[in-house]
Amino acid sequence: MGQLLKPDDFVVGLDIGGTKFMAAVMNHKFKVMGRSRKRSKSRKNPSEKAEDRIIRIVEEAIREAGNPVIKGIGAGSPGPLDPATGIIIDTPNLGWKNFPLADILKEHFGVPVVVDNDVNVGTYGEWCFGQVSQCEDVVGIFPGTGIGGGIIINRKLLHGFSGAAGEVGHMTLEVDGPYCGCGKRGCLEALASRIAIAKEVAALAARGDAPYILEHCGTDLANMRSGEIAEAIRAGEKMVESVVRKAAFYTGIAVANLINILSPEAVVLGGGLVEAMTDLYLEEVNRAVKEHAMKFLRKGVKIVPAKLGDDAVVLGAAHMIAEKLSAT
Amino acid sequence: MGQLLKPDDFVVGLDIGGTKFMAAVMNHKFKVMGRSRKRSKSRKNPSEKAEDRIIRIVEEAIREAGNPVIKGIGAGSPGPLDPATGIIIDTPNLGWKNFPLADILKEHFGVPVVVDNDVNVGTYGEWCFGQVSQCEDVVGIFPGTGIGGGIIINRKLLHGFSGAAGEVGHMTLEVDGPYCGCGKRGCLEALASRIAIAKEVAALAARGDAPYILEHCGTDLANMRSGEIAEAIRAGEKMVESVVRKAAFYTGIAVANLINILSPEAVVLGGGLVEAMTDLYLEEVNRAVKEHAMKFLRKGVKIVPAKLGDDAVVLGAAHMIAEKLSAT
Repeated sequence: MGQLLKPDDFVVGLDIGGTKFMAAVMNHKFKVMGRSRKRSKSRKNPSEKAEDRIIRIVEEAIREAGNPVIKGIGAGSPGPLDPATGIIIDTPNLGWKNFPLADILKEHFGVPVVVDNDVNVGTYGEWCFGQVSQCEDVVGIFPGTGIGGGIIINRKLLHGFSGAAGEVGHMTLEVDGPYCGCGKRGCLEALASRIAIAKEVAALAARGDAPYILEHCGTDLANMRSGEIAEAIRAGEKMVESVVRKAAFYTGIAVANLINILSPEAVVLGGGLVEAMTDLYLEEVNRAVKEHAMKFLRKGVKIVPAKLGDDAVVLGAAHMIAEKLSAT
Repeated sequence: MGQLLKPDDFVVGLDIGGTKFMAAVMNHKFKVMGRSRKRSKSRKNPSEKAEDRIIRIVEEAIREAGNPVIKGIGAGSPGPLDPATGIIIDTPNLGWKNFPLADILKEHFGVPVVVDNDVNVGTYGEWCFGQVSQCEDVVGIFPGTGIGGGIIINRKLLHGFSGAAGEVGHMTLEVDGPYCGCGKRGCLEALASRIAIAKEVAALAARGDAPYILEHCGTDLANMRSGEIAEAIRAGEKMVESVVRKAAFYTGIAVANLINILSPEAVVLGGGLVEAMTDLYLEEVNRAVKEHAMKFLRKGVKIVPAKLGDDAVVLGAAHMIAEKLSAT
């Protein structure tokens, strides 16, 4: 993969998250030479604009790498966004609406920029640098606070007509199921995200059925982090485990639907919940796929955990801009 | 589209259905010059092999067209099958198992052959010759006795790793829903196919709540044809209408899921149920899409009825073989 860039070419991978920003400067072999990371909102200066803060961390990462000349910037951002123009359509967390992120970065740094949905970019990173780089068709699914997905078909990210394909978290799985943040009912996200799990686990704690959770997290959904939930299961809280297994099984049904529809060669499972409870997720997803995907479609499909962790987006984004540079 | 073939080039489109076979010989403008159609099983000679019967109707269609030299054959067959080799993996209806259909036709007629899943080919026909030929990404969904689907991405049919992508009828929509012919529960097909509708309508008839149905079809599921169901609704049987609307709404939820996942530019609705009750289906599918697809993904998506009827497969298949011939 070193062929995309020439020796002495450097690119920036940028991960614009709802809670943190990260920039990494990489050399032509995608080795990280400098890195900067900050919360999305400054505590000292809460009125600082998100875009100014992003420019600052890119500059810091470049400085940390020893001030190389950079050739381009790739960025993953929460969507919906238009990857063709690099305009972010709407991200309430960052206060952006029809925000021309690509143009702003291009103008400030004077280099080509690509912007894509963060989950797409993360899937792409796992595909470029993870266990499934030989596969033509790959699906990524990332259960965490929300549930995002990325779809690679014929070795290309699927964007579709709107530019925003891959909203697997809003696949309806139970027609009259629980309400979702999107306003619909029965979405995968309403059934299986960290928030969906947290609400059940908090109720267990409130009823006295999850003493570990009650002691460590109280009954506030905001405190039910994936790591704490995993600890409660390790501490033997069987009802907490049942709640998570049910959510993981729903995630697996969504994977089965994607296998029935798309027939991918591999499925990558990532996100906070999977990172914290990898074996449990692999077990339940495989069980659901066996029950809900057609035999001739699931045969030989690799279901693997993501391996890049926090670096999936910066690596995927860096690879995307490198491809763009090498194509021109 | 006439450019694919030279004047005086003729091709055959073949529709291998579970209940009928049809072959059509077409000229370079895809005008049907000769046609033959038979039941899949001969009443006079029930032991005749399906493959012999297929060869016979192709020969009849060529004769009817005035015996032109044909350049190739395109065929749509029930799957699962492998479009790369033209081998039918398993079709209980026709008694084929790992059956080399493409090779058999190639050998008998001495011309190139392409074989693909019938619903894929039908979707492709609608895309080549219907209302959505300008769209890059198209989904076709065909509710009838079963529910099949075809997916076109970047102007190409999606086959995926297994070769059999597009099993939208086996998308799980209700985790503990009714049993499906595939052995799973809660598949779209178990909720919304003609059989799913027939079972409810027959129960209405048996209870005396659908006198038109009782008079015209009795209580046997096999008699509940799409046309009769449509007639019962026209005759004012409100409970029959409710049953069909519910099934059409489920079909729409599946369409919404496909929009959320794939972000197509257009969705083509075909199949026996849609042909018999087009307006009802368009209404319910549009309602479900509005409720279950994300706004930025459904914006501007065309949802149109299929327009080729029984000719979708022969036309799509003829176009596929013409493309293959023009590429070599």
